[in-house]
Amino acid sequence: MTKPSNSQLAQAMFAPKSVALIGASGDATKSTSRPQRFLRHHGYAGRIIPVNPGRKEIFGETAYPNLRAVPEPVDHAFIMVPTDGVAEAVAQCCERQVPVVTIFSDGFAETGEAGRRKQEELLKLARASGVRILGPNCIGLLDTHSHLALSVNAVLEKAVINPGPVAIVSQSGSMMGGLMSRGAGRGIGFSRLVSVGNEVDLSVGEVADIIVDDPETRVILLFMETIRDGDRLAAAARRAFAAGKPVIVFKLGRSDVGVELATSHTGAMTGSDDSAEAFFRANGMLRVEQLETLFELPSLVLGQRPAKRHRTAVMTTTGGGAALVVDRLGVLGVEVVPPSDAVVASLAEKGIRISRARLTDLTVAGAKKEIYSAVLNALLASDHCDLVLAVAGSSAQFQPDIAVGPIIAATPRTKPLAVFLGPHAETSLSMLLEAGIAGFRTPEACADAIHAWSQWRAPVEFPSPLAVRVNAAQAALGSARRLNEHEACRVFAALGVPAAACEIITGPDQAVKLEFPVAAKILSPDIPHKTEAGGVAIGVATPEELKRAAAAILQGVRANHPRARVNGVLVQRMERGLAEVIVGYKHDPQVGPIVVLGVGGTLAEIYRDFAVRLAPVTRDEAATMIEEVKGLAIIRGYRTQPRGDCAALAEAVAAFSQLAALEPRVAEAEVNPLIVKGEGEGVVAVDGLLVLTDNTEKA
Amino acid sequence: MTKPSNSQLAQAMFAPKSVALIGASGDATKSTSRPQRFLRHHGYAGRIIPVNPGRKEIFGETAYPNLRAVPEPVDHAFIMVPTDGVAEAVAQCCERQVPVVTIFSDGFAETGEAGRRKQEELLKLARASGVRILGPNCIGLLDTHSHLALSVNAVLEKAVINPGPVAIVSQSGSMMGGLMSRGAGRGIGFSRLVSVGNEVDLSVGEVADIIVDDPETRVILLFMETIRDGDRLAAAARRAFAAGKPVIVFKLGRSDVGVELATSHTGAMTGSDDSAEAFFRANGMLRVEQLETLFELPSLVLGQRPAKRHRTAVMTTTGGGAALVVDRLGVLGVEVVPPSDAVVASLAEKGIRISRARLTDLTVAGAKKEIYSAVLNALLASDHCDLVLAVAGSSAQFQPDIAVGPIIAATPRTKPLAVFLGPHAETSLSMLLEAGIAGFRTPEACADAIHAWSQWRAPVEFPSPLAVRVNAAQAALGSARRLNEHEACRVFAALGVPAAACEIITGPDQAVKLEFPVAAKILSPDIPHKTEAGGVAIGVATPEELKRAAAAILQGVRANHPRARVNGVLVQRMERGLAEVIVGYKHDPQVGPIVVLGVGGTLAEIYRDFAVRLAPVTRDEAATMIEEVKGLAIIRGYRTQPRGDCAALAEAVAAFSQLAALEPRVAEAEVNPLIVKGEGEGVVAVDGLLVLTDNTEKA
Repeated sequence: MTKPSNSQLAQAMFAPKSVALIGASGDATKSTSRPQRFLRHHGYAGRIIPVNPGRKEIFGETAYPNLRAVPEPVDHAFIMVPTDGVAEAVAQCCERQVPVVTIFSDGFAETGEAGRRKQEELLKLARASGVRILGPNCIGLLDTHSHLALSVNAVLEKAVINPGPVAIVSQSGSMMGGLMSRGAGRGIGFSRLVSVGNEVDLSVGEVADIIVDDPETRVILLFMETIRDGDRLAAAARRAFAAGKPVIVFKLGRSDVGVELATSHTGAMTGSDDSAEAFFRANGMLRVEQLETLFELPSLVLGQRPAKRHRTAVMTTTGGGAALVVDRLGVLGVEVVPPSDAVVASLAEKGIRISRARLTDLTVAGAKKEIYSAVLNALLASDHCDLVLAVAGSSAQFQPDIAVGPIIAATPRTKPLAVFLGPHAETSLSMLLEAGIAGFRTPEACADAIHAWSQWRAPVEFPSPLAVRVNAAQAALGSARRLNEHEACRVFAALGVPAAACEIITGPDQAVKLEFPVAAKILSPDIPHKTEAGGVAIGVATPEELKRAAAAILQGVRANHPRARVNGVLVQRMERGLAEVIVGYKHDPQVGPIVVLGVGGTLAEIYRDFAVRLAPVTRDEAATMIEEVKGLAIIRGYRTQPRGDCAALAEAVAAFSQLAALEPRVAEAEVNPLIVKGEGEGVVAVDGLLVLTDNTEKA
Repeated sequence: MTKPSNSQLAQAMFAPKSVALIGASGDATKSTSRPQRFLRHHGYAGRIIPVNPGRKEIFGETAYPNLRAVPEPVDHAFIMVPTDGVAEAVAQCCERQVPVVTIFSDGFAETGEAGRRKQEELLKLARASGVRILGPNCIGLLDTHSHLALSVNAVLEKAVINPGPVAIVSQSGSMMGGLMSRGAGRGIGFSRLVSVGNEVDLSVGEVADIIVDDPETRVILLFMETIRDGDRLAAAARRAFAAGKPVIVFKLGRSDVGVELATSHTGAMTGSDDSAEAFFRANGMLRVEQLETLFELPSLVLGQRPAKRHRTAVMTTTGGGAALVVDRLGVLGVEVVPPSDAVVASLAEKGIRISRARLTDLTVAGAKKEIYSAVLNALLASDHCDLVLAVAGSSAQFQPDIAVGPIIAATPRTKPLAVFLGPHAETSLSMLLEAGIAGFRTPEACADAIHAWSQWRAPVEFPSPLAVRVNAAQAALGSARRLNEHEACRVFAALGVPAAACEIITGPDQAVKLEFPVAAKILSPDIPHKTEAGGVAIGVATPEELKRAAAAILQGVRANHPRARVNGVLVQRMERGLAEVIVGYKHDPQVGPIVVLGVGGTLAEIYRDFAVRLAPVTRDEAATMIEEVKGLAIIRGYRTQPRGDCAALAEAVAAFSQLAALEPRVAEAEVNPLIVKGEGEGVVAVDGLLVLTDNTEKA
């Protein structure tokens, strides 16, 4: 079989003409009976072919002992046999050239190494014959337009899944039912729902990529636990962005970030969740923090593009209700702006007086529809804000027309409009949903959604490497397999990261031309922790002191690390500045090259205060990293403190991030510390580390 | 009228025999018609007396032109007249000795200074005659047992408010309806609901105190914007705790914390929300972060006492659903524990095999009721955990008996049991509520509730002052109105905070007996920022250097601050340690004396990393503060770093917090820095500041 095209794959996956249910049961109490019952129940019109060696017929359909015996072509097979029978079932699918095979059976990679090997065997079979696999350990998939309810999910027994514009792809099979029922519970209509299971073949990214082309789908929700196929997902997210279909992610793993804190290099300090977040953002996706937001955010961003600024205007008839949202927006760092003079004046002309306070609270007057409308429309039309949050009070519960009517009628609808309702008000929420307006049940989800919108960016365009610098860095890298500090800093310097002036001496008696004071450090690719090894002397004031220091260092290192290769003693001019920062680089296993910026020192490490981006970054992007690191307030003009050279720092971070262009691949690298001097005085690297991928073991 | 007792007040407030509605309207479209209509609609059986000079009768009740004309005694008056008529109405209430007057009318303190003065006038009138005021700017109150719906809240037009064990006191009138309808929307029954408005007289604390005695009320929810009457609220919370009635708070103002960061002393660095949090905790209250948790937490803590440890065991039939909650618990720092060996073994004896993983995921097996029951009961009975979180999957939606049945039947019910449902499952949630089991709709509220429980403590007993130390400190304080650094440190030393050895010299030629190196600092009560004034020299190595330094300091200060009183130059032994911390004290306007502990330096300030407690604290409480400050990891044994003398630090913080016992009252004080040395080597204060309340202006 030739590899099917995306549209052939989509058809076989979501609108198959025939489905074989391998391991189907006629006992309605068994979960293996469900797909057949659910397909019928939800109105699937294609052929259903149960496969079960012990039955001639199941629920009125002819059953076959195996796939070979099936007399007609099969578009999609669903395998539910015990683990040990899966390979044979897949083999039969390959024989019969079934384009898509969904495997519900578990017992594979999720159980450990032996399972992972079994899973790889399935993939090998499939690859050899062009068959595509969804799963294993996948609860199934659903397409409301083709009425394909090909799943074991008990929810489908009774739930009515309405068709609509929302697609879900989930890495958690067990949450699929929960997501479906939560969406349905608030009247959301779905196009396609897919559990990807262990992703041995079809990954979240590839499934999402197929769904981008579905004309019925306008927004794609992802429930994620990890990123297994970053490249595919990035491509899908970028295609979705181009098509105006927002991709909204809920990802578990926030609390794993602390796990890797134990190790000492920057790469490891960046928990994988931080990398994932950088990945989502770089690829134009939106990430939510609260589960409910997954269903409430779509209406806010559908038809929108990322905004340049994120000033939020708030109007309300309930001060307390609005404060609930605004307080959380404050915590999340979203800017809430008072009405502009022009808005106040234009309303005054209509006889409506609003205050210039940050919160436009209409309390009494706002009970009148005309006034609420006039204020809301004025805010929507004004260019002093980029999003309007309208909060409605008690009337939303029993007088939805009064509370929600003016909101539904509001114009212009060019900027995003978010609505929070103080009371429990299902009818009002339904009316808003119907009108395509984002209504929020909780202040927390409302603030979460507005925050996600404020973080939304178009997919980044990675800067092209500056050939002359990359070539120079490549030359500096040479054929070294393992670099010492000096060699690492030379590579960084070639890319454009200034390094402190230095000389290498091989014995204590060698003189240096450097200005004193200097630092002296052992130079060895085998000693990453120089200070602990007695290999560092700082503040060396005179040539005589240097002589003594160098002798002590060489002697000490030879005693402590007799087998370490020693390249000499690095003598470096002592550098001073306003702050010490760490710049890190890592080839992240999930998302590829990332660059990390943080403040130096133990405290910053404890507070986990870093900015992370996919590498390489432009200078502008690096500047946003500097803004993002809280502790870098100390160089941004904190109180009376002098400003640091942020421009030079951004330049250095951008240059450093070009490590992504080198071959052999850099596994991880860091400048620690990079000293930031006063404005116009630059930055300078005083220590560095570079580890290549083919040589990641460390002393 | 003599001041009514609590029970008389409670009766007049919540179960009045007669209610006068001053400013009542007969026009059903007007909000002033509502109380009368609502009282009838909700079944109030007492006398309703409309007061309106223009009407003889309103909705079938005889109306009177004013209160004087009412021929019978009035228990409770509800004032709805325009702002300017309120004083006269209150005066009539005083004349007629109406025990409780609720004022709906607005235009008082919430509008500014003039309004605040009008409000004070009302209070004066009331105080003079023993009348109590609720409000002004109060939307009303409700008692489901006496069917008193004395409110203008539109929600009462149609809503059915079921009686039940939950009372609400709210500082936001406009959110009252929202709270009521959100509670009702999930089937919660209420006992009493009170909007306190501007709290000119009856405060949240006093109202809560009255409600503690209500036999129908089992839990009190507070919706707060600020703390206006801390003492009363503390007393009420402590009485409620003693009565086993949990007090659960939702408070706005999280994001205001940043506001005061601008000023440089510790007291101000503590935003008022941090103080409020310390206050809630010290008084045995629970604080929630999410609005929904307010309604979901009660069942978790009703009948419980604060636990000593907070190990959470989690069992689930949906891995993804449980991970949603556990991930957030991780972020919130709540410990999730795997099953103990004993639990695993005892279940194995019954033929049930569970893993030793942190999450007890039954997936397939758990679909069986008996197995789910056995595991849940084993966890509830085991002493390896202090709370059990049971998570149910899709079956909760359509097979509530299977999903929720075993949970409702679970025994023993001695420890708290929280339930999160993966799907949208209203029936299951109702069943849980009915059974008094805490069911959660969102993973975020579930984690928030468990976190609130984990932070719950019995009200603290403040340590009694050590008379000998307080007397010594009082003596050191003397009659000074303004203290210099040296005098401040002497007060702290008298309380038990060790100070660096020092001597005062009055001229450069004076010798000192101190060991060198030393620091020299200008000593003046008028120069708080010594360094900026050129008044500090550190690392002074020899007597000669000291001579020069002292001369320079005196000369510089005389030039820069010619009017400052100069007490000499403080010469202090240079001290070194492992860390510098700040210990602060403040008489907080909301909650009274507080003590604050943080790491010294700019970064810690930027990260707002402080622990706050009501003062005074015991050594044990101070030890919990040390644990709480993230940055103090550096003295708790971070990586390979040596441990600091945490015992001495706790001792010093406890001693410092005894400033609360001094007279005249200390407005604010700080030791900055307090140097923490290695284990067993103690702590030492090297700089201090003390400001008395009658002298808070600063240079």
